[in-house]
Amino acid sequence: MERIEEIAPRIEIPSSGVRLGIGDDAAVFRATPGCEQILTCDWFLEGSHFLRDKHPADAVGWKCLARAVSDVAAMGGVPRCFLLSLALPATHTGVWLEQFLGGLRRAARRFACVLAGGDTTRNKNILINVTVVGEARTGRAILRSGARPGDALFVSGRLGEAELGLRLIRSRHRPNNQDPVLKKQFYPEPRLALGRWLAEKRLPSAMMDLSDGLSTDLPRLCSLSGVGARIEAGKIPMVALAKSGRSPDNDPLEMGLDGGDDYELLFTVPRRKWKHLPRSFHGLPITAIGEITKEPALLLIQEGGRAGPLRNLGWDPFRKPLQEPVGKAREMRS
Amino acid sequence: MERIEEIAPRIEIPSSGVRLGIGDDAAVFRATPGCEQILTCDWFLEGSHFLRDKHPADAVGWKCLARAVSDVAAMGGVPRCFLLSLALPATHTGVWLEQFLGGLRRAARRFACVLAGGDTTRNKNILINVTVVGEARTGRAILRSGARPGDALFVSGRLGEAELGLRLIRSRHRPNNQDPVLKKQFYPEPRLALGRWLAEKRLPSAMMDLSDGLSTDLPRLCSLSGVGARIEAGKIPMVALAKSGRSPDNDPLEMGLDGGDDYELLFTVPRRKWKHLPRSFHGLPITAIGEITKEPALLLIQEGGRAGPLRNLGWDPFRKPLQEPVGKAREMRS
Repeated sequence: MERIEEIAPRIEIPSSGVRLGIGDDAAVFRATPGCEQILTCDWFLEGSHFLRDKHPADAVGWKCLARAVSDVAAMGGVPRCFLLSLALPATHTGVWLEQFLGGLRRAARRFACVLAGGDTTRNKNILINVTVVGEARTGRAILRSGARPGDALFVSGRLGEAELGLRLIRSRHRPNNQDPVLKKQFYPEPRLALGRWLAEKRLPSAMMDLSDGLSTDLPRLCSLSGVGARIEAGKIPMVALAKSGRSPDNDPLEMGLDGGDDYELLFTVPRRKWKHLPRSFHGLPITAIGEITKEPALLLIQEGGRAGPLRNLGWDPFRKPLQEPVGKAREMRS
Repeated sequence: MERIEEIAPRIEIPSSGVRLGIGDDAAVFRATPGCEQILTCDWFLEGSHFLRDKHPADAVGWKCLARAVSDVAAMGGVPRCFLLSLALPATHTGVWLEQFLGGLRRAARRFACVLAGGDTTRNKNILINVTVVGEARTGRAILRSGARPGDALFVSGRLGEAELGLRLIRSRHRPNNQDPVLKKQFYPEPRLALGRWLAEKRLPSAMMDLSDGLSTDLPRLCSLSGVGARIEAGKIPMVALAKSGRSPDNDPLEMGLDGGDDYELLFTVPRRKWKHLPRSFHGLPITAIGEITKEPALLLIQEGGRAGPLRNLGWDPFRKPLQEPVGKAREMRS
């Protein structure tokens, strides 16, 4: 196999911990004393995670790193370096690859995360896998398993924006990459600064990032914590659609509950610490959407006060295609 | 996406450094004081790296980890943990997956390398990517770049055995998995003990593992070291074929030079240290095959003494198919 050094220009950030980068059998990383290492990897496959004809190459480069880095943000850590595994068709080793690397490079600089190594090969389809190494002070990484009954449940940002973007690019023949409504779908921002601040202040009892949709991710946090949750539909920060833009296929609440790819943070905070939490962090809204319950059920309280089960309808690649897709995005995701 | 914890039973080894395994946003690893971390990732894709109908599922499980761990052996390091990214067709989530995990588990125990996390998704083709984290004492990892003129060039084991196995399984309708001639192709052994011993004794000036064939890998070591090399055809430890088994398509020298997947170690040793090197290490032969030269060319000395260029004919996924394939294995690899 060709090693990635032959196609990827070096992406270097001082003090990344990378002592030996691409080109050798492996990269050599020097851990920061007093820190633990956070290890995560993510698939980014055409057809499953992006659409070759809809997602611009530089958005593919940005997003493949952003979503892996988001797992580090979700633990309150700092990204250090990443490994890129890339398989490309021969047709994509020219302009496409250059633009892909451009987006990747911008993301690497933005997240201060150095390309340390990788593996490249040829394939009919575009296959990407990214491994990120991050760090957190020893014992300080925030896990999914610490939520306790009575804790309040918070989310950053707005939910459903990436899903709305996905629906738009699927419906449009040629999307304008600069359209701000597509930013969340093309160039998501992992919430690194917020995650790090929360971890430093030791506010969250549990935290995770929202990659597959609130209705799929919240059950994971609750299951690992051995708790349930009650969330209020009226409190979920949703996309703002002009009335003309709404349709049964474009319901802001449904997109907020089930839409994936938002990469916002979902976290729980014990009651005695609520007062330390601001309503926004450097302009990013932080919204209380419900609370953790002892009862392990997951409840959604409608605006009228009616409670019903929160149905797990986020993204699951192993789920069979839904008989009646709620939104067009289902097709890509099942 | 489903996280891997739902399908992969835990593979645990005490004192692996893994503080938090599969199930959370990411794994948490605690680095060993006085050590650096070795980071490597490897594709293992059906059609490119293995054949769905020829490689048994448990060999796929074993080999995907073995080849990534081999990069750690090549630096003289010790593997600690790994991340598994797996994409499978729905047809392969039953028996195939169970056997795959069986082979993977055996390999993980054998190499003392813990499954720390991963990512799973659905795909038409079987896609595997493995990231391994290893460790070496700070400053002691052996790089590819340290070879100097006059150093002797050594290899472990025999070269071409995996290539021979590949040719056999391609020619046979239903290979017998237990056939010893297929062991190197199905269940390669990364040379961890030898690599570690060499690093402890500080014998090699440069080292790498042979994954793509000597004729492709040696130029990489030489290029990073800024040197050339002269190797002797008659000294290369080759597969022993009964005369009846030989054919122009089955030349032991060609398989030894160009065959991939051997995962033997290739290393250089300064002249003053030759005397410390045994002829075998726990039964594994160690063979001097040539020497490093100042002149950057790569020369192959035939048995009669005639010297010619060493042609780079090992595995390269980006190379166009050869017009006249030297062996059948070419088809799979181009």
